[in-house]
Amino acid sequence: MKNFKITCAFSGTNYHGFQRQENLPTVQGELEKAFYKLLGEKTQVNGCSRTDAGVHANEFVFNAFIDTAIDPRGIKFGLNGVLPPDIAILKAEEAPDDFHARFLCKGKEYKYIIHNSETKSPFLADRAYRSWYPIDEKKLDRACKDFIGEHDFKAFCAAACDKDITVRTVFDYKVERQNDLVIFTVSGDGFLYNMVRITVGTLLFINDGKLKEDSIPGIISSKDRRRAGKTVPPQGLYLNRVFY
Amino acid sequence: MKNFKITCAFSGTNYHGFQRQENLPTVQGELEKAFYKLLGEKTQVNGCSRTDAGVHANEFVFNAFIDTAIDPRGIKFGLNGVLPPDIAILKAEEAPDDFHARFLCKGKEYKYIIHNSETKSPFLADRAYRSWYPIDEKKLDRACKDFIGEHDFKAFCAAACDKDITVRTVFDYKVERQNDLVIFTVSGDGFLYNMVRITVGTLLFINDGKLKEDSIPGIISSKDRRRAGKTVPPQGLYLNRVFY
Repeated sequence: MKNFKITCAFSGTNYHGFQRQENLPTVQGELEKAFYKLLGEKTQVNGCSRTDAGVHANEFVFNAFIDTAIDPRGIKFGLNGVLPPDIAILKAEEAPDDFHARFLCKGKEYKYIIHNSETKSPFLADRAYRSWYPIDEKKLDRACKDFIGEHDFKAFCAAACDKDITVRTVFDYKVERQNDLVIFTVSGDGFLYNMVRITVGTLLFINDGKLKEDSIPGIISSKDRRRAGKTVPPQGLYLNRVFY
Repeated sequence: MKNFKITCAFSGTNYHGFQRQENLPTVQGELEKAFYKLLGEKTQVNGCSRTDAGVHANEFVFNAFIDTAIDPRGIKFGLNGVLPPDIAILKAEEAPDDFHARFLCKGKEYKYIIHNSETKSPFLADRAYRSWYPIDEKKLDRACKDFIGEHDFKAFCAAACDKDITVRTVFDYKVERQNDLVIFTVSGDGFLYNMVRITVGTLLFINDGKLKEDSIPGIISSKDRRRAGKTVPPQGLYLNRVFY
Protein backbone atom coordinates (compact mmCIF):
# COMPACT_ATOMS: atom_id res chain seq x y z
CA MET A 1 0.00 0.00 0.00
CA LYS A 2 1.23 3.48 -0.90
CA ASN A 3 -0.06 6.68 0.64
CA PHE A 4 -0.94 9.31 -1.99
CA LYS A 5 -1.35 13.03 -1.32
CA ILE A 6 -3.77 14.30 -3.96
CA THR A 7 -4.73 17.90 -4.72
CA CYS A 8 -8.04 18.55 -6.44
CA ALA A 9 -10.38 21.42 -7.33
CA PHE A 10 -14.14 21.33 -7.59
CA SER A 11 -17.21 23.39 -8.24
CA GLY A 12 -19.51 22.71 -5.28
CA THR A 13 -22.74 23.70 -7.01
CA ASN A 14 -23.93 20.16 -7.70
CA TYR A 15 -22.76 18.64 -4.40
CA HIS A 16 -23.96 18.47 -0.81
CA GLY A 17 -20.50 19.38 0.41
CA PHE A 18 -17.32 17.32 0.44
CA GLN A 19 -18.16 14.70 3.03
CA ARG A 20 -19.87 11.45 1.97
CA GLN A 21 -23.59 11.29 2.81
CA GLU A 22 -25.99 8.44 2.19
CA ASN A 23 -27.98 8.94 -1.05
CA LEU A 24 -26.73 12.47 -1.70
CA PRO A 25 -24.15 13.55 -4.27
CA THR A 26 -20.94 14.62 -2.52
CA VAL A 27 -17.38 15.25 -3.70
CA GLN A 28 -16.01 12.46 -1.50
CA GLY A 29 -18.64 10.09 -2.89
CA GLU A 30 -17.59 10.94 -6.47
CA LEU A 31 -13.90 10.51 -5.62
CA GLU A 32 -14.51 7.09 -4.04
CA LYS A 33 -16.60 6.03 -7.06
CA ALA A 34 -13.78 7.18 -9.35
CA PHE A 35 -11.18 5.15 -7.39
CA TYR A 36 -13.45 2.12 -7.65
CA LYS A 37 -13.73 2.53 -11.43
CA LEU A 38 -9.98 3.00 -11.76
CA LEU A 39 -8.72 0.33 -9.33
CA GLY A 40 -11.66 -2.04 -8.92
CA GLU A 41 -11.58 -1.80 -5.14
CA LYS A 42 -12.88 0.38 -2.34
CA THR A 43 -10.58 3.24 -1.35
CA GLN A 44 -10.95 5.44 1.72
CA VAL A 45 -10.54 9.16 0.98
CA ASN A 46 -9.35 11.39 3.88
CA GLY A 47 -10.23 15.00 3.07
CA CYS A 48 -8.47 18.02 4.59
CA SER A 49 -11.77 19.60 5.58
CA ARG A 50 -15.52 19.40 5.42
CA THR A 51 -17.11 21.92 3.09
CA ASP A 52 -20.74 23.01 2.99
CA ALA A 53 -23.13 22.44 0.09
CA GLY A 54 -22.42 24.88 -2.74
CA VAL A 55 -18.92 25.81 -1.50
CA HIS A 56 -16.10 25.53 -4.07
CA ALA A 57 -12.41 24.62 -3.89
CA ASN A 58 -9.55 25.95 -5.98
CA GLU A 59 -7.29 23.66 -3.94
CA PHE A 60 -8.43 20.81 -1.71
CA VAL A 61 -6.10 18.08 -0.45
CA PHE A 62 -6.92 14.49 0.46
CA ASN A 63 -4.91 11.35 1.04
CA ALA A 64 -5.67 7.75 0.22
CA PHE A 65 -3.83 4.42 0.68
CA ILE A 66 -3.74 2.57 -2.62
CA ASP A 67 -2.35 -0.83 -3.55
CA THR A 68 -1.30 -0.09 -7.12
CA ALA A 69 1.57 -0.08 -9.57
CA ILE A 70 0.17 3.03 -11.28
CA ASP A 71 2.48 6.04 -10.86
CA PRO A 72 1.25 9.43 -9.55
CA ARG A 73 0.83 10.87 -13.06
CA GLY A 74 -1.24 7.83 -14.02
CA ILE A 75 -3.41 8.25 -10.90
CA LYS A 76 -4.03 11.89 -11.85
CA PHE A 77 -4.98 11.21 -15.48
CA GLY A 78 -6.86 8.02 -14.61
CA LEU A 79 -9.03 9.73 -11.98
CA ASN A 80 -9.66 12.77 -14.22
CA GLY A 81 -10.91 10.43 -16.94
CA VAL A 82 -13.60 8.90 -14.73
CA LEU A 83 -14.52 11.87 -12.52
CA PRO A 84 -17.35 14.23 -13.52
CA PRO A 85 -16.20 17.45 -15.29
CA ASP A 86 -16.79 19.62 -12.19
CA ILE A 87 -14.14 17.77 -10.12
CA ALA A 88 -10.51 17.92 -11.30
CA ILE A 89 -7.37 16.27 -9.96
CA LEU A 90 -4.57 18.88 -10.11
CA LYS A 91 -1.71 16.82 -8.69
CA ALA A 92 -1.00 13.37 -7.24
CA GLU A 93 2.18 12.55 -5.32
CA GLU A 94 3.47 9.76 -3.10
CA ALA A 95 3.58 10.74 0.58
CA PRO A 96 5.05 9.22 3.76
CA ASP A 97 2.80 6.65 5.44
CA ASP A 98 2.06 9.01 8.32
CA PHE A 99 0.75 11.80 6.08
CA HIS A 100 -2.91 12.55 6.83
CA ALA A 101 -4.63 15.38 4.95
CA ARG A 102 -6.70 16.58 7.91
CA PHE A 103 -4.58 15.84 11.00
CA LEU A 104 -1.39 17.32 9.53
CA CYS A 105 -3.00 20.41 7.99
CA LYS A 106 -1.27 23.55 9.39
CA GLY A 107 -3.66 26.08 7.94
CA LYS A 108 -5.96 27.10 5.13
CA GLU A 109 -6.73 30.11 2.98
CA TYR A 110 -10.27 30.94 1.88
CA LYS A 111 -11.59 33.46 -0.64
CA TYR A 112 -15.08 34.90 -0.58
CA ILE A 113 -16.28 36.62 -3.77
CA ILE A 114 -19.04 39.24 -3.87
CA HIS A 115 -20.40 40.38 -7.23
CA ASN A 116 -21.00 44.03 -6.30
CA SER A 117 -23.29 45.16 -9.09
CA GLU A 118 -26.83 46.28 -9.87
CA THR A 119 -26.68 44.02 -12.93
CA LYS A 120 -27.40 40.32 -12.57
CA SER A 121 -24.84 38.07 -14.24
CA PRO A 122 -26.28 34.63 -15.09
CA PHE A 123 -22.74 33.23 -15.29
CA LEU A 124 -21.80 34.31 -11.75
CA ALA A 125 -25.01 33.04 -10.11
CA ASP A 126 -23.36 29.92 -8.64
CA ARG A 127 -19.87 31.42 -8.32
CA ALA A 128 -20.34 34.58 -6.26
CA TYR A 129 -22.80 36.25 -3.90
CA ARG A 130 -24.41 39.26 -5.55
CA SER A 131 -24.87 42.38 -3.45
CA TRP A 132 -25.87 45.59 -5.25
CA TYR A 133 -25.21 48.00 -2.34
CA PRO A 134 -21.88 49.77 -3.08
CA ILE A 135 -19.00 48.26 -1.11
CA ASP A 136 -16.18 50.45 0.21
CA GLU A 137 -13.42 47.85 -0.05
CA LYS A 138 -10.79 50.21 1.42
CA LYS A 139 -12.84 50.68 4.60
CA LEU A 140 -13.41 46.92 4.90
CA ASP A 141 -9.74 46.20 4.24
CA ARG A 142 -8.90 48.42 7.23
CA ALA A 143 -11.62 46.92 9.46
CA CYS A 144 -10.78 43.28 8.70
CA LYS A 145 -7.26 43.62 10.13
CA ASP A 146 -8.88 43.36 13.60
CA PHE A 147 -9.51 39.67 12.90
CA ILE A 148 -5.76 38.97 12.58
CA GLY A 149 -4.10 37.19 15.50
CA GLU A 150 -5.04 34.58 18.11
CA HIS A 151 -8.56 35.16 19.40
CA ASP A 152 -11.52 33.26 20.82
CA PHE A 153 -13.83 33.34 17.77
CA LYS A 154 -16.92 31.96 19.57
CA ALA A 155 -18.96 34.99 18.35
CA PHE A 156 -18.14 33.96 14.77
CA CYS A 157 -19.22 30.34 15.04
CA ALA A 158 -22.61 29.02 13.88
CA ALA A 159 -25.02 27.89 16.61
CA ALA A 160 -24.46 24.29 15.44
CA CYS A 161 -20.75 24.64 16.26
CA ASP A 162 -19.76 21.73 18.49
CA LYS A 163 -16.18 22.74 19.30
CA ASP A 164 -15.13 23.10 22.94
CA ILE A 165 -12.13 25.16 21.98
CA THR A 166 -13.04 28.17 19.86
CA VAL A 167 -9.63 29.85 19.89
CA ARG A 168 -8.12 30.15 16.41
CA THR A 169 -5.29 32.15 14.85
CA VAL A 170 -6.01 34.23 11.77
CA PHE A 171 -2.74 34.72 9.87
CA ASP A 172 -3.94 37.38 7.44
CA TYR A 173 -7.10 39.05 6.15
CA LYS A 174 -7.54 41.41 3.19
CA VAL A 175 -10.33 42.87 1.08
CA GLU A 176 -9.72 44.07 -2.47
CA ARG A 177 -11.68 44.93 -5.61
CA GLN A 178 -11.29 43.61 -9.17
CA ASN A 179 -13.80 45.60 -11.24
CA ASP A 180 -17.23 44.59 -9.90
CA LEU A 181 -15.90 41.70 -7.82
CA VAL A 182 -14.95 42.30 -4.19
CA ILE A 183 -12.65 39.57 -2.91
CA PHE A 184 -12.14 38.72 0.77
CA THR A 185 -9.03 36.58 1.43
CA VAL A 186 -8.44 35.09 4.87
CA SER A 187 -5.88 32.55 6.09
CA GLY A 188 -5.54 30.90 9.48
CA ASP A 189 -4.61 27.77 11.38
CA GLY A 190 -8.22 26.60 11.40
CA PHE A 191 -11.77 27.89 11.07
CA LEU A 192 -14.90 27.24 13.12
CA TYR A 193 -18.16 26.21 11.46
CA ASN A 194 -19.31 29.07 9.16
CA MET A 195 -16.58 31.32 10.60
CA VAL A 196 -15.39 32.75 7.28
CA ARG A 197 -18.94 33.44 6.10
CA ILE A 198 -19.82 35.16 9.41
CA THR A 199 -16.71 37.39 9.28
CA VAL A 200 -17.71 38.47 5.74
CA GLY A 201 -21.30 39.11 6.89
CA THR A 202 -19.95 41.21 9.78
CA LEU A 203 -17.78 43.26 7.39
CA LEU A 204 -20.89 43.85 5.23
CA PHE A 205 -22.70 45.20 8.32
CA ILE A 206 -19.75 47.60 8.78
CA ASN A 207 -20.05 48.58 5.11
CA ASP A 208 -23.78 49.27 5.45
CA GLY A 209 -23.33 51.32 8.64
CA LYS A 210 -25.12 48.77 10.85
CA LEU A 211 -21.84 48.33 12.74
CA LYS A 212 -18.99 50.78 13.28
CA GLU A 213 -15.63 50.35 11.55
CA ASP A 214 -13.89 49.59 14.87
CA SER A 215 -16.50 47.20 16.29
CA ILE A 216 -14.77 43.86 15.59
CA PRO A 217 -12.61 43.71 18.78
CA GLY A 218 -15.74 44.27 20.92
CA ILE A 219 -17.67 41.54 19.10
CA ILE A 220 -14.76 39.11 19.50
CA SER A 221 -14.50 39.77 23.26
CA SER A 222 -18.30 39.48 23.73
CA LYS A 223 -18.20 35.84 22.47
CA ASP A 224 -21.84 36.50 21.48
CA ARG A 225 -22.91 35.24 18.03
CA ARG A 226 -25.84 37.68 18.02
CA ARG A 227 -23.49 40.68 17.90
CA ALA A 228 -21.79 39.56 14.67
CA GLY A 229 -23.27 39.90 11.16
CA LYS A 230 -25.27 37.46 9.05
CA THR A 231 -23.83 34.29 7.55
CA VAL A 232 -23.37 35.10 3.85
CA PRO A 233 -24.46 32.36 1.40
CA PRO A 234 -22.16 29.46 0.38
CA GLN A 235 -21.78 30.05 -3.39
CA GLY A 236 -19.23 32.88 -2.89
CA LEU A 237 -16.86 30.74 -0.78
CA TYR A 238 -13.72 29.04 -2.16
CA LEU A 239 -11.19 26.97 -0.26
CA ASN A 240 -8.13 28.45 -1.97
CA ARG A 241 -5.01 26.92 -0.39
CA VAL A 242 -4.14 24.25 2.17
CA PHE A 243 -0.88 24.47 4.15
CA TYR A 244 1.26 21.58 5.49
CA MET B 1 -51.24 46.97 -24.71
CA LYS B 2 -47.62 48.03 -25.24
CA ASN B 3 -45.04 46.02 -27.15
CA PHE B 4 -41.77 45.62 -25.23
CA LYS B 5 -38.42 44.66 -26.74
CA ILE B 6 -36.47 42.93 -23.98
CA THR B 7 -32.82 41.86 -23.99
CA CYS B 8 -31.75 39.11 -21.61
CA ALA B 9 -28.79 36.81 -20.90
CA PHE B 10 -28.87 33.31 -19.53
CA SER B 11 -26.75 30.33 -18.58
CA GLY B 12 -28.33 27.41 -20.42
CA THR B 13 -26.93 24.69 -18.14
CA ASN B 14 -30.12 24.12 -16.17
CA TYR B 15 -32.53 24.47 -19.11
CA HIS B 16 -33.79 22.34 -21.98
CA GLY B 17 -33.21 25.21 -24.38
CA PHE B 18 -35.11 28.46 -24.78
CA GLN B 19 -38.41 27.22 -26.17
CA ARG B 20 -41.22 26.21 -23.79
CA GLN B 21 -41.70 22.44 -23.41
CA GLU B 22 -44.29 20.63 -21.34
CA ASN B 23 -42.89 19.57 -17.92
CA LEU B 24 -39.30 20.57 -18.68
CA PRO B 25 -37.46 23.65 -17.40
CA THR B 26 -36.90 26.12 -20.26
CA VAL B 27 -35.88 29.77 -20.40
CA GLN B 28 -39.18 30.76 -22.06
CA GLY B 29 -41.08 28.88 -19.35
CA GLU B 30 -39.18 30.79 -16.62
CA LEU B 31 -39.78 34.14 -18.37
CA GLU B 32 -43.50 33.47 -18.69
CA LYS B 33 -43.68 32.43 -15.01
CA ALA B 34 -41.85 35.65 -14.07
CA PHE B 35 -44.32 37.79 -16.07
CA TYR B 36 -47.19 36.03 -14.31
CA LYS B 37 -45.67 36.77 -10.89
CA LEU B 38 -45.05 40.40 -11.85
CA LEU B 39 -48.30 41.20 -13.69
CA GLY B 40 -50.74 38.53 -12.54
CA GLU B 41 -51.63 37.52 -16.08
CA LYS B 42 -50.40 35.26 -18.86
CA THR B 43 -47.93 36.88 -21.24
CA GLN B 44 -46.74 35.44 -24.56
CA VAL B 45 -42.96 35.65 -25.03
CA ASN B 46 -41.67 35.72 -28.64
CA GLY B 47 -38.00 34.72 -28.66
CA CYS B 48 -35.52 35.67 -31.42
CA SER B 49 -34.38 32.08 -31.77
CA ARG B 50 -34.61 28.57 -30.43
CA THR B 51 -31.54 27.44 -28.55
CA ASP B 52 -30.53 23.88 -27.67
CA ALA B 53 -30.25 22.47 -24.16
CA GLY B 54 -27.06 23.68 -22.47
CA VAL B 55 -26.47 26.57 -24.91
CA HIS B 56 -25.93 30.01 -23.33
CA ALA B 57 -26.79 33.57 -24.33
CA ASN B 58 -24.84 36.75 -23.64
CA GLU B 59 -27.60 38.58 -25.54
CA PHE B 60 -31.00 37.16 -26.44
CA VAL B 61 -33.93 39.33 -27.54
CA PHE B 62 -37.65 38.67 -27.12
CA ASN B 63 -40.79 40.77 -27.39
CA ALA B 64 -44.02 40.65 -25.40
CA PHE B 65 -47.27 42.63 -25.45
CA ILE B 66 -48.06 43.84 -21.95
CA ASP B 67 -51.02 45.78 -20.56
CA THR B 68 -49.24 47.69 -17.81
CA ALA B 69 -48.44 51.12 -16.44
CA ILE B 70 -44.98 49.94 -15.33
CA ASP B 71 -42.18 51.71 -17.23
CA PRO B 72 -39.37 49.81 -18.99
CA ARG B 73 -36.96 50.24 -16.06
CA GLY B 74 -39.61 48.84 -13.71
CA ILE B 75 -40.17 45.87 -16.04
CA LYS B 76 -36.43 45.16 -16.00
CA PHE B 77 -36.02 45.34 -12.21
CA GLY B 78 -39.36 43.62 -11.56
CA LEU B 79 -38.54 40.65 -13.78
CA ASN B 80 -34.99 40.35 -12.40
CA GLY B 81 -36.43 40.16 -8.90
CA VAL B 82 -38.61 37.13 -9.69
CA LEU B 83 -36.43 35.32 -12.26
CA PRO B 84 -33.93 32.65 -11.16
CA PRO B 85 -30.32 33.89 -10.79
CA ASP B 86 -29.18 32.24 -14.05
CA ILE B 87 -31.51 34.39 -16.21
CA ALA B 88 -30.95 38.17 -16.25
CA ILE B 89 -32.86 40.96 -17.96
CA LEU B 90 -30.28 43.42 -19.36
CA LYS B 91 -32.61 45.96 -20.97
CA ALA B 92 -36.33 46.59 -21.54
CA GLU B 93 -37.62 49.18 -24.01
CA GLU B 94 -40.91 50.08 -25.63
CA ALA B 95 -41.07 49.06 -29.30
CA PRO B 96 -43.44 49.75 -32.22
CA ASP B 97 -46.45 47.41 -32.38
CA ASP B 98 -45.04 45.67 -35.46
CA PHE B 99 -41.74 44.72 -33.77
CA HIS B 100 -41.31 40.93 -33.59
CA ALA B 101 -38.06 39.50 -32.15
CA ARG B 102 -37.84 36.58 -34.59
CA PHE B 103 -39.44 37.82 -37.82
CA LEU B 104 -37.54 41.12 -37.85
CA CYS B 105 -34.16 39.69 -36.82
CA LYS B 106 -31.56 40.62 -39.49
CA GLY B 107 -28.75 38.47 -38.16
CA LYS B 108 -26.98 36.95 -35.18
CA GLU B 109 -23.48 36.50 -33.82
CA TYR B 110 -22.42 33.35 -31.99
CA LYS B 111 -19.30 32.54 -30.00
CA TYR B 112 -18.00 29.03 -29.41
CA ILE B 113 -15.43 28.59 -26.62
CA ILE B 114 -12.95 25.72 -26.44
CA HIS B 115 -10.89 25.23 -23.29
CA ASN B 116 -7.69 24.03 -24.95
CA SER B 117 -5.82 22.51 -22.04
CA GLU B 118 -4.59 19.24 -20.59
CA THR B 119 -5.84 20.46 -17.22
CA LYS B 120 -9.49 20.05 -16.30
CA SER B 121 -11.10 23.19 -14.92
CA PRO B 122 -14.16 22.43 -12.75
CA PHE B 123 -15.38 26.00 -13.23
CA LEU B 124 -15.37 25.81 -17.05
CA ALA B 125 -17.12 22.42 -17.25
CA ASP B 126 -20.52 23.90 -18.21
CA ARG B 127 -19.12 26.99 -19.95
CA ALA B 128 -16.72 25.63 -22.58
CA TYR B 129 -15.86 22.46 -24.45
CA ARG B 130 -12.52 21.06 -23.32
CA SER B 131 -10.17 19.72 -25.96
CA TRP B 132 -6.61 18.93 -24.92
CA TYR B 133 -5.15 18.50 -28.44
CA PRO B 134 -3.17 21.70 -29.24
CA ILE B 135 -5.15 24.05 -31.46
CA ASP B 136 -3.39 26.14 -34.13
CA GLU B 137 -5.76 29.11 -33.99
CA LYS B 138 -3.90 30.98 -36.77
CA LYS B 139 -4.42 28.09 -39.18
CA LEU B 140 -8.11 27.84 -38.24
CA ASP B 141 -8.55 31.61 -38.54
CA ARG B 142 -7.31 31.35 -42.13
CA ALA B 143 -9.43 28.27 -42.95
CA CYS B 144 -12.68 29.67 -41.47
CA LYS B 145 -12.70 32.59 -43.94
CA ASP B 146 -14.02 30.10 -46.56
CA PHE B 147 -17.35 30.08 -44.70
CA ILE B 148 -17.85 33.82 -45.34
CA GLY B 149 -20.40 34.78 -48.02
CA GLU B 150 -23.66 33.43 -49.38
CA HIS B 151 -23.57 29.63 -49.67
CA ASP B 152 -25.86 26.62 -49.56
CA PHE B 153 -24.90 25.27 -46.11
CA LYS B 154 -26.81 21.95 -46.46
CA ALA B 155 -23.60 20.03 -45.58
CA PHE B 156 -23.50 21.93 -42.25
CA CYS B 157 -27.07 21.19 -41.18
CA ALA B 158 -28.04 18.41 -38.74
CA ALA B 159 -29.95 15.45 -40.19
CA ALA B 160 -33.02 16.68 -38.30
CA CYS B 161 -32.87 19.97 -40.26
CA ASP B 162 -36.29 20.59 -41.78
CA LYS B 163 -35.52 23.69 -43.86
CA ASP B 164 -36.25 23.64 -47.61
CA ILE B 165 -33.94 26.57 -48.20
CA THR B 166 -30.45 25.98 -46.84
CA VAL B 167 -28.79 29.05 -48.34
CA ARG B 168 -27.45 31.43 -45.71
CA THR B 169 -25.02 34.36 -45.66
CA VAL B 170 -22.13 34.31 -43.22
CA PHE B 171 -21.03 37.92 -42.57
CA ASP B 172 -17.81 37.18 -40.73
CA TYR B 173 -15.89 34.33 -39.08
CA LYS B 174 -12.78 34.50 -36.92
CA VAL B 175 -10.79 32.26 -34.56
CA GLU B 176 -8.58 33.73 -31.83
CA ARG B 177 -6.87 32.65 -28.61
CA GLN B 178 -7.06 34.15 -25.11
CA ASN B 179 -4.60 32.12 -23.02
CA ASP B 180 -6.02 28.58 -22.97
CA LEU B 181 -9.38 29.57 -24.44
CA VAL B 182 -9.86 29.38 -28.22
CA ILE B 183 -12.81 31.51 -29.31
CA PHE B 184 -14.70 31.05 -32.59
CA THR B 185 -16.89 34.07 -33.52
CA VAL B 186 -19.32 33.83 -36.43
CA SER B 187 -22.06 36.19 -37.59
CA GLY B 188 -24.63 35.76 -40.33
CA ASP B 189 -28.18 36.44 -41.47
CA GLY B 190 -29.35 33.10 -40.09
CA PHE B 191 -28.08 29.67 -39.10
CA LEU B 192 -29.37 26.17 -39.85
CA TYR B 193 -29.92 23.63 -37.07
CA ASN B 194 -26.53 22.89 -35.43
CA MET B 195 -24.76 24.84 -38.18
CA VAL B 196 -22.38 26.76 -35.89
CA ARG B 197 -21.44 23.63 -33.97
CA ILE B 198 -20.80 21.67 -37.21
CA THR B 199 -18.57 24.46 -38.63
CA VAL B 200 -16.51 24.37 -35.40
CA GLY B 201 -16.31 20.56 -35.56
CA THR B 202 -15.12 20.83 -39.17
CA LEU B 203 -12.42 23.34 -38.20
CA LEU B 204 -11.27 20.92 -35.47
CA PHE B 205 -10.93 18.20 -38.14
CA ILE B 206 -8.72 20.64 -40.09
CA ASN B 207 -6.71 21.27 -36.91
CA ASP B 208 -6.23 17.55 -36.31
CA GLY B 209 -5.20 16.88 -39.94
CA LYS B 210 -8.32 14.82 -40.72
CA LEU B 211 -9.25 17.46 -43.30
CA LYS B 212 -7.02 19.79 -45.32
CA GLU B 213 -6.87 23.52 -44.60
CA ASP B 214 -8.55 24.33 -47.95
CA SER B 215 -11.29 21.68 -47.79
CA ILE B 216 -14.24 23.88 -46.77
CA PRO B 217 -15.30 25.06 -50.27
CA GLY B 218 -15.46 21.42 -51.45
CA ILE B 219 -17.55 20.37 -48.44
CA ILE B 220 -19.94 23.28 -49.02
CA SER B 221 -20.42 22.42 -52.70
CA SER B 222 -20.89 18.69 -51.93
CA LYS B 223 -24.00 19.52 -49.79
CA ASP B 224 -23.15 16.26 -47.98
CA ARG B 225 -23.34 16.32 -44.18
CA ARG B 226 -21.04 13.27 -43.97
CA ARG B 227 -18.10 15.24 -45.38
CA ALA B 228 -18.19 17.88 -42.62
CA GLY B 229 -16.86 17.42 -39.08
CA LYS B 230 -18.59 16.34 -35.88
CA THR B 231 -21.15 18.46 -34.06
CA VAL B 232 -19.28 19.85 -31.04
CA PRO B 233 -21.18 19.79 -27.72
CA PRO B 234 -23.61 22.55 -26.67
CA GLN B 235 -21.93 23.93 -23.51
CA GLY B 236 -19.33 25.92 -25.51
CA LEU B 237 -21.94 27.83 -27.55
CA TYR B 238 -23.11 31.38 -26.75
CA LEU B 239 -25.61 33.49 -28.69
CA ASN B 240 -23.63 36.73 -28.43
CA ARG B 241 -25.50 39.44 -30.38
CA VAL B 242 -28.81 39.82 -32.24
CA PHE B 243 -29.10 42.35 -35.09
CA TYR B 244 -32.26 44.30 -36.12
